[in-house]
Amino acid sequence: MSAAFPDNALAADIAAGLSRVETLFDTQLTSAFPAVNELCRHVERYRGKMLRPTLVLVSGLAFTADGESLRPEHDIVAGTVEMIHMATLVHDDVLDDAEVRRRGETVNFLRGNETAVMLGDYLISNAFHLCSRAGDPALNLRLGEVTNTLCEGELVQLSRRHDLSLDENTYFEIVRRKTAVLVGAACELGTKLAGATAAEIAAMRAFGENLGVAFQIQDDLLDLLGDEATVGKSIGRDLEKGKLTLPMILHIAHNQGADRLAALEAIDAKDGPALRRVLTRSGSIDAARARAVAIVEDAKRGLPQTRRAHSRELLLELANRVVARES
Amino acid sequence: MSAAFPDNALAADIAAGLSRVETLFDTQLTSAFPAVNELCRHVERYRGKMLRPTLVLVSGLAFTADGESLRPEHDIVAGTVEMIHMATLVHDDVLDDAEVRRRGETVNFLRGNETAVMLGDYLISNAFHLCSRAGDPALNLRLGEVTNTLCEGELVQLSRRHDLSLDENTYFEIVRRKTAVLVGAACELGTKLAGATAAEIAAMRAFGENLGVAFQIQDDLLDLLGDEATVGKSIGRDLEKGKLTLPMILHIAHNQGADRLAALEAIDAKDGPALRRVLTRSGSIDAARARAVAIVEDAKRGLPQTRRAHSRELLLELANRVVARES
Repeated sequence: MSAAFPDNALAADIAAGLSRVETLFDTQLTSAFPAVNELCRHVERYRGKMLRPTLVLVSGLAFTADGESLRPEHDIVAGTVEMIHMATLVHDDVLDDAEVRRRGETVNFLRGNETAVMLGDYLISNAFHLCSRAGDPALNLRLGEVTNTLCEGELVQLSRRHDLSLDENTYFEIVRRKTAVLVGAACELGTKLAGATAAEIAAMRAFGENLGVAFQIQDDLLDLLGDEATVGKSIGRDLEKGKLTLPMILHIAHNQGADRLAALEAIDAKDGPALRRVLTRSGSIDAARARAVAIVEDAKRGLPQTRRAHSRELLLELANRVVARES
Repeated sequence: MSAAFPDNALAADIAAGLSRVETLFDTQLTSAFPAVNELCRHVERYRGKMLRPTLVLVSGLAFTADGESLRPEHDIVAGTVEMIHMATLVHDDVLDDAEVRRRGETVNFLRGNETAVMLGDYLISNAFHLCSRAGDPALNLRLGEVTNTLCEGELVQLSRRHDLSLDENTYFEIVRRKTAVLVGAACELGTKLAGATAAEIAAMRAFGENLGVAFQIQDDLLDLLGDEATVGKSIGRDLEKGKLTLPMILHIAHNQGADRLAALEAIDAKDGPALRRVLTRSGSIDAARARAVAIVEDAKRGLPQTRRAHSRELLLELANRVVARES
């Protein structure tokens, strides 16, 4: 990602930081057992955009004066949020029966659900262990809260699978919990560790949470509309697993009669092409996309003034990418 | 369990402590979402012997003078180790396709693997969050190490399923990691929080680890020999899932020709009755049981002098129960 950033001192600091975080991540997961290492090396191949660690580092640098460095705790938090994210990917792939992730095979596909369950547990455990290495109880407490909330979001989503009455408010509540709180915490903790004010920390958390919600809507759209070759992971999982996503919810709420019925039937029959046709015709796909764009605009409007040169532009650029991405 | 303890002030303190730990456990898991609470209430029904929290409390009281109280951190650690244990039960039941636990249905049987995976994650996350509430980074770091080790043990065990060459050393290494370190940490941290010496802490950790290993051998024997009605959970899971346990390993190592072959064939065919016959005849079941008893005797011999009246007797009694139990 850093290659696409403008060529300046900030970009260099972020690239250096991400490289340190990668090393920290890999070192944390080094085991005395080859069987465990082999699985962790596989998971490291899932590493992609590094959105969450990037946000920790950029948020930290944004509230640090030019020439000042990040704290070692920034790297630890960046590694921890990425490891939590990886654990959720491994377990989500079990929940979704997904076979492809980052253009490679998933752990559950390659090694079975049992190994994927336990590998995800190993990643969660290591995430908490890595976080504990910072020696700051407030970090452990906050990230524990975040993962509690994340799991609650997943459990509520599971309890509403195949439930055609799922409304917009509940959808946003689930998404906030399962996706947005972690992204929000990345921004919040990066900012907090840089010694920013309470108002700056709160504003950055809100920025991150908005990015997280928009990110999830874009993920939903890619799952509905994308093809595996471009997206690089199994798609059509939401329909297959009975997860109602925003375009479906908007269509059901704002259409009547035959149009509404056609969507319900396509969802029930897990008929992706039919669902795409009816949601496109009704404008529900465009409406969901517009919602994601509006949330990103909200995020950008609420972004506080930062201290370091170029950092605000970079945060705005990261926000734009959330809805522009094709994978 | 406390009802079976001698009627004295120590027993009363333990009973009061376990009651506080139950409240802490239930409060920690209270969610704003009924769907989440319902699942947690189900898990609370798994609560049985409370071996691990009991060991935290007894270890703490053993190194506290008569009349002195435990610290609030004792309750937090006791609740945390029990919650970690519950998380492993929920995920183990997924790995083992188990249908019965504590005479009730498992979460995976009732609600599917997906919900069980996510509920286990919620329990792990809450365990770390509960631990973080103590505000002591050393506790987080130690328990993070413990759960890393536990998951490694499970991953190594999974990698050796259906592997008839699994030897005794590797078996004990797996058991130490997946079961014994958590029991050892319960004793270690209970003792440490009471302000005991480094030698006392180390001795109590070794005591707990020995109990954990003996506990696992007894579990293996119950899985092989017990019936579901008595044990209260699905049995025969080890054979079904290709997990070689100590009686099988001892038989394969110490028998030749037709006797050895008969066991290998029974394991391959997952034929429980045939396996029980051949392992009984060769004395391998008795040998495994004798090993568990010897480990408990080792544990008892290594038990340090304690400070509080009756506490040493109680620890010895808890050690005896590990191999005497039928469920």
